[in-house]
Amino acid sequence: MNRTPEAVLTELSAVVRDGRVISAAPTLERFRSDAVPSAADGRPLAAVLARSTEDVRQSLRWAGRHRIAVTTRGAGTGLSGGAAAVDGGLVMCLEEMTGIRIDPSARVATVGAGALNGDVKDAARKHGLHYPPDPASFRTSSIGGNIATNAGGLCCVKYGVTAAYVLGLEVVLADGTVLRLGGRTVKDVAGLPLLPLFVGSEGALGIVTRADLRLVPEPAPSSTVAAVFPTLEAAGAAVVEIGRCLSPSMLELLDQTTINCLEDLRPAGLDRDAGALLIAQVDASGSGRVDECRLLSEICEKNGADEVNSTDDPDEGEMFIEVRRNIGRAYEMRGALIAGDVVVPIDRLPQLLRAVHELDKTVEVEVPVAAHAGDGNVHPTVIYDPARPGAEDAAWRVCDDIMRIAVDLGGTIAGEHGIGRKKRHMLDRQLGGDVMRISQAVKDLFDPEGLLNPGVLV
Amino acid sequence: MNRTPEAVLTELSAVVRDGRVISAAPTLERFRSDAVPSAADGRPLAAVLARSTEDVRQSLRWAGRHRIAVTTRGAGTGLSGGAAAVDGGLVMCLEEMTGIRIDPSARVATVGAGALNGDVKDAARKHGLHYPPDPASFRTSSIGGNIATNAGGLCCVKYGVTAAYVLGLEVVLADGTVLRLGGRTVKDVAGLPLLPLFVGSEGALGIVTRADLRLVPEPAPSSTVAAVFPTLEAAGAAVVEIGRCLSPSMLELLDQTTINCLEDLRPAGLDRDAGALLIAQVDASGSGRVDECRLLSEICEKNGADEVNSTDDPDEGEMFIEVRRNIGRAYEMRGALIAGDVVVPIDRLPQLLRAVHELDKTVEVEVPVAAHAGDGNVHPTVIYDPARPGAEDAAWRVCDDIMRIAVDLGGTIAGEHGIGRKKRHMLDRQLGGDVMRISQAVKDLFDPEGLLNPGVLV
Repeated sequence: MNRTPEAVLTELSAVVRDGRVISAAPTLERFRSDAVPSAADGRPLAAVLARSTEDVRQSLRWAGRHRIAVTTRGAGTGLSGGAAAVDGGLVMCLEEMTGIRIDPSARVATVGAGALNGDVKDAARKHGLHYPPDPASFRTSSIGGNIATNAGGLCCVKYGVTAAYVLGLEVVLADGTVLRLGGRTVKDVAGLPLLPLFVGSEGALGIVTRADLRLVPEPAPSSTVAAVFPTLEAAGAAVVEIGRCLSPSMLELLDQTTINCLEDLRPAGLDRDAGALLIAQVDASGSGRVDECRLLSEICEKNGADEVNSTDDPDEGEMFIEVRRNIGRAYEMRGALIAGDVVVPIDRLPQLLRAVHELDKTVEVEVPVAAHAGDGNVHPTVIYDPARPGAEDAAWRVCDDIMRIAVDLGGTIAGEHGIGRKKRHMLDRQLGGDVMRISQAVKDLFDPEGLLNPGVLV
Repeated sequence: MNRTPEAVLTELSAVVRDGRVISAAPTLERFRSDAVPSAADGRPLAAVLARSTEDVRQSLRWAGRHRIAVTTRGAGTGLSGGAAAVDGGLVMCLEEMTGIRIDPSARVATVGAGALNGDVKDAARKHGLHYPPDPASFRTSSIGGNIATNAGGLCCVKYGVTAAYVLGLEVVLADGTVLRLGGRTVKDVAGLPLLPLFVGSEGALGIVTRADLRLVPEPAPSSTVAAVFPTLEAAGAAVVEIGRCLSPSMLELLDQTTINCLEDLRPAGLDRDAGALLIAQVDASGSGRVDECRLLSEICEKNGADEVNSTDDPDEGEMFIEVRRNIGRAYEMRGALIAGDVVVPIDRLPQLLRAVHELDKTVEVEVPVAAHAGDGNVHPTVIYDPARPGAEDAAWRVCDDIMRIAVDLGGTIAGEHGIGRKKRHMLDRQLGGDVMRISQAVKDLFDPEGLLNPGVLV
C-alpha cells in the first residue's frame, strides 16, 4: 500500500473511533521521550490517545498494513527509554484508559492500562484493601507501565513486585488478536503460562490494555527504625542479617552522598557525616511489631550502627518515607541523571556497595547510592553536568561499569526499571547467546514484522 | 537413521554417562504412571535415570535423532497424568538428581530437579530458613514436579505458590541447548521474562534440571482455629470475609462427606453431622497472633458457625493439619479417585460449593470436597467403584461437569495439579481458540518435533 503520509494518517483517524489521533508536531513533542529524554529519541508520525481496546486493535492493524513501528506509552515516567518514540513511528498512548473497578469480595481491581498506580491504591483503600507495589513514581506512573517493567518499589521486600499481583491481562497482539489471559482467580495452571511472559516484556510482545490485579487486606500501621552507620558495608552486613531473621515491610539504604543531596534540598537533620543511613519499617500486627522493631534495632547495633532510633508513630515514620521519596528531586538539583538499577544476590550486597564506591574517581561524575537494600536492588545514580562536552558519554561508561560489576557478582543489570533502549547494549553480557537467541525467536513469534517497540529488549 | 531397537538402545546407553538406562519391561513398569494410573498409560521403550544435566542433554539429542517422544518424570506423585509414559517413548526420570545446597546468607536453595520438597524444607530449617510451598505430597513430591505444575498447598493462601519462589532455572531444550534463566537475585527484569514460562509448563517446553529457590525466615509458631458450620455455604461466606480482613497462613475447608471419610479412617472426634469444618491458622508474631485468632473466630461466629475452637499450642494445631493431610488416604478407602482441582474468584466460592453439592445424584459416585478455601481452590474428589462397568467414565463425566461449573463462574479447571493428559479435553473451553493457537505456536517454537511430553497441555 503506497499512499501519501496524509492519506495514511487520514486512514488512522478513521479507524480510531473512541480516542484521538495527534499528528501536529508541537503537540507530539510530549510523546517523544520518557522521564529521561535523550537526543536519540525519535520524531513520531503520530500518537493515538486510545480510549478503548478496539482503538488499540485497529491502530495495530493499521500499523501492520503500513509497516509502521509502534511505541507503547503509559504515563511516560520510565527511566530506560522504553517509551522513547521511533522516527516516523506511532506512539500508542494509553494514558486515557484509566478505568478502575474494585471488586471487594473477590479482592480484585480491574483497571485500564493507563490507570495510575496511586489511583488504584486510593480506590482499593475505600474498601479496606491494598494494592502493594509502590515504585517511587506511584503517584504518576501507570499500571500498564508498571506491568511493562514489572515495577518494584519500597514495599516489595515483603510484598513482592508487580508480577505477584497480576491475575489477568487483556493483551492486543501485533496482528490485532485480543488475548485474554488468566482472570480473577488467585491460582491458575490451566495451559502454558503465557500471562507472565507479558509482565516485564516492555511492550515488545503485545500491548496490555487491561489488568486484573490482586488486592490484599490493608496492612497494620508500621513502626520505623532509622540507623546511622559509619560505613556502607557495615549497613550492608546489617541488611543481610536482618533478612535472615525478619520480613521488614521496607529496608532502604542511603549513602553519604545521598544524605548530603537530601540535606541540600531540604534540611531534615540527617547526619551529613554518616557513612550510610538505613531506614526500615515493620508492619506486623499487635506486639509483633514492637518485638520485630527491637530485634531489627539490635541487629543494627551489633553490626556497628552509631545511632539507632525507632518510632511506633506512623506519622513520624511517614516523614522518613517522605525523605526517601525526595531522592530523585535531590539528585536532579545536582545535574543530569542516569539511574542505575542493579541487583545482586543478597549476600553480595556489601561487595557491590564497596565496588560502586571504588569506581574510577577521575571521571567528573557523582554516583550517590540509594538502595531497596532488602532486595539487593541498588540504584547508583550517575550525576553529570550536561553542559560539559562528553559528560553524558562518560556518565554512561560509569553506568556500564556498574552493570558489569553487578553481572560479575552474579547479579542483574535491571531490577525494576526495565532495559528499554538505554541498557540493551549490556544485555548479551548478562544473558549469553542462547538466551538472547531464544528471546529473539519468541519476539519473532509474537511480532514477526518487528513493529512493536523496536529497539527495546531484544 | 533406521536402526534396530537394540542398536538404538545401545546408543542411548553409550551417551548416558552418569546415570543409568532401564529397558527391561518389569523394571519399566513403575515408570509408566503417575499417582493416578490409567489403562491409557503407555509402555515406554526405556527410562533414563539421569544423574547429570549432561545425561539429560545427551538423552534429548538421542531422542531427537530417533524422533522418540520423551516424558519427564520427577517423583511420580502427579494427579493429572503429566508423567504418564508414551508407547515406545523415553521416560526421562530425574529422581536421582537430588542435590541440595543452601546458601543461608543469600537465602537461596540450589537444588536438583529430583530433590524432594520436604528435603529442601529440612535442609533450609537447619539454617533457620523456610521453603514455603507445601503441596499435600511435600514429603514425596519433587521440586521438578512442583515446578512443572506450579504446585500450591496449604500455606499458599499467605505465602504464594511455587512460581513465587523460583529465582533461577537450568532448562534443557528439545535440541539439547542448556538455558540458564534468572539466578540468585530476588528481582530481575533483564530481558524477556522466559523463566516463568517454564513454571507450570509440565515438561512440554523443556526439561528443568536445576532450580534456585528463594527461602524466607522461618515463620512464627501458628495458632489454630477450627470452626464447625451448619452448611458449606455458610463456611464459604466466612472464608470470603476472612480474606478481606486477614492474611491467615492456612484456610482449609472440609465438607460433611470428607469429615465422615476421615472419621472412618481414624476417629478424631470430628462432628459427623457438621455441614463443614473450617481449619485456619495464623502465624503473626507476638500478640498479633492472638488478635488475629480472635478476629477470625468472630467472623466465623458472625457467619453462623455452631462451634469455634482455637488453640495457641502448635502441637495441638499440628493434629488438625495431620487430619487434613490424611484426606487422600481416607478417600482411597472408599474407592478409586479422580482429583478435581478447580479455582474460582474468591467471591464465587459459596456458589461453587453449592453447585458441586447439587451435582446429579443419580450417578453412583461420591464427591467429597476439601478446599484450599482461602485461595478459592476447591478439590472435589470423584470416588467411584472401579469394579463397576462404566464407573470410571461416569466419574469423568462428573469431573467434567465440575470443571464446566468452575469455568462458568469465571474460574479455572486447574489450580495446582496441572492439566496433564487427563484434563486436556477441557482446556479449549476455558482458554478459547486464540489462546490455544498461541500456546501451540509457543510449543512449536520450543519443541518443533513435538517430542516433549506429547499429549500434555497443548
